[in-house]
Amino acid sequence: MKEQTEEKITLESLGEFGLIKHLTKSIKLKNKSSLKGVGDDAAVINFGKKKALVTTDILLEGIHFDLTYTPLKHLGYKAAMVNFSDICAMNGTPTQLLITIGVSKRFALEQIEEIYAGIYMACEQYNVDVVGGDTTSSLTGLTLSITCLGEADENKIVYRNGAKVNDLVCVTGDLGAAYMGLQLLEREKMVFRGQKDPEFQPDFAGKEYILERQLKPEARKDIIENLAKANIVPTAMMDVSDGLSSELLHICNQSGVGCRIYEEKLPIDYVTATMCEEFNINLTTAALNGGEDYELLFTVPLDLHDAVKELDNVHIIGHITDASEGSALVTRDGQEFAIQAQGWTAFAHDQK
Amino acid sequence: MKEQTEEKITLESLGEFGLIKHLTKSIKLKNKSSLKGVGDDAAVINFGKKKALVTTDILLEGIHFDLTYTPLKHLGYKAAMVNFSDICAMNGTPTQLLITIGVSKRFALEQIEEIYAGIYMACEQYNVDVVGGDTTSSLTGLTLSITCLGEADENKIVYRNGAKVNDLVCVTGDLGAAYMGLQLLEREKMVFRGQKDPEFQPDFAGKEYILERQLKPEARKDIIENLAKANIVPTAMMDVSDGLSSELLHICNQSGVGCRIYEEKLPIDYVTATMCEEFNINLTTAALNGGEDYELLFTVPLDLHDAVKELDNVHIIGHITDASEGSALVTRDGQEFAIQAQGWTAFAHDQK
Repeated sequence: MKEQTEEKITLESLGEFGLIKHLTKSIKLKNKSSLKGVGDDAAVINFGKKKALVTTDILLEGIHFDLTYTPLKHLGYKAAMVNFSDICAMNGTPTQLLITIGVSKRFALEQIEEIYAGIYMACEQYNVDVVGGDTTSSLTGLTLSITCLGEADENKIVYRNGAKVNDLVCVTGDLGAAYMGLQLLEREKMVFRGQKDPEFQPDFAGKEYILERQLKPEARKDIIENLAKANIVPTAMMDVSDGLSSELLHICNQSGVGCRIYEEKLPIDYVTATMCEEFNINLTTAALNGGEDYELLFTVPLDLHDAVKELDNVHIIGHITDASEGSALVTRDGQEFAIQAQGWTAFAHDQK
Repeated sequence: MKEQTEEKITLESLGEFGLIKHLTKSIKLKNKSSLKGVGDDAAVINFGKKKALVTTDILLEGIHFDLTYTPLKHLGYKAAMVNFSDICAMNGTPTQLLITIGVSKRFALEQIEEIYAGIYMACEQYNVDVVGGDTTSSLTGLTLSITCLGEADENKIVYRNGAKVNDLVCVTGDLGAAYMGLQLLEREKMVFRGQKDPEFQPDFAGKEYILERQLKPEARKDIIENLAKANIVPTAMMDVSDGLSSELLHICNQSGVGCRIYEEKLPIDYVTATMCEEFNINLTTAALNGGEDYELLFTVPLDLHDAVKELDNVHIIGHITDASEGSALVTRDGQEFAIQAQGWTAFAHDQK
């Protein structure tokens, strides 16, 4: 990297994570209360016995959502949920939320109310208080930025860098569904544009599950609660927002380890599989690289195998190895393929 | 309001504050740790002995800034500073910051670095840690959203609703300079567009002060420190971001009081006065309604008169009255004019 001509570095070549890394490398924390800054799902701030967690996410029209098929209420719900998911990914409980929104005059009050209704519904369901924000006009598209605070006991907070050799790799729920939901929405949008019947309605029958995964994801607060009940504190954890491959590499890189993940162990829903066949998309690729599932990926010591097996909606998909062995997927026929991050990168979307 | 036909409510008619009020009126705080939610400069979260303050602000290209004359480093600096100002306005100390940025491909890495350099410079100067954020691409303009956390002793936090009859009304620094700086920048932009000499440089000589007030404002952390040293806890406080009139009405409305402000007491810098004459703008109007000064407006009990008089850069501009007397400006010739909020409203800008 050092030898590269400086003029050649573009946003595209850096990608989102590269850019963040580049821009934050000079940060030095100065306040005693800043326990954890950039580099995990949320920052950790020390204001007493319980620790405060804080995270922020921005959703921009045309980049993160398409109003052609995203109901505004769902948009609000999802914007809140992705932040709750970041707090859960620290093994914390979301507690407060701030909403920042930029809207142009083409929006009616009712539409903005819809967005807020979605956010409030999410907050109601997850027992989170909306405590502030900023509302402004926009000359262009809709901008929605959410900041979420949460709390956790200091010794329960789980970072990305604690995975140890022989730990079990676990993932919750199922993978690839949100991605296939997006594919379906995109296809129906194209069909809709190309046809002439004004009565046309897209055919989503039987596909409700993957649509809901895309449009109305849930943060896995239930898993955090179940882990606490079972007295299990993962060694490393993050949420699956960019895709399993990408998140696995984050955990392995930050923990200084490698991993083996088994193709046959990847949890995939039946509807996801059906859609992959219909779209001629490789099922394993969808599960590994499809983002926005907001499931939790975590590692636990091997001796917790039986305890983890008992948990609902938790799947053991592999184990942690020494860094020298790299990170690989083991296919059904025993072949090994290096895991590569092909997940969603923010700047790749900028070419439309 | 109740009798109004619902279809008639537009974003424009509501204005920023009306919209926030409308959208947040149904909020009920559920967590014990949410000491203060929507309705002040920052939320107050209880995580122990010291209280956490958190605030967020969004800056959108074309609405809050114009890249024709806003250097990117200044933009970053200002974005951080307006958040610090919100924390100071609670009588708190800013401690952590999260940066959320959306940029399109027309930006080069160096330009984004400039923005971050400005934010880091502000953080360095105010001893604030950058602890997180979100970076993404945008299909259109630059979006910059900052969230700031701060801390304060519970009994030192100052809200907007504590002003009492006979309290003194104080303001720091001077007023209207940032607004006149903006007028100057706008004029030079017009001149620049209309002229044919490629060597043209705008003439800003002698006007540095008002330009700096617009492009590189400072949060009044020094005032917060001096108030603490003098053992003064204001009864109400907020920062002057939308204009003195607007902020006075916020304090009076939330405190259930009125006020008398004296025209002759309004602190105005010489350069601001000169520019008002040049632009044929009423000086008092600029001081009352020009926003973005980021000075502090606060009230203190009358018996602290002498202590407040001792403070540098603090000016007593009037006093609090009973609500029945309303809020008024007393002119140099003794006339009274009701104070009206004519400050910056987000949706009025949307007509360009």
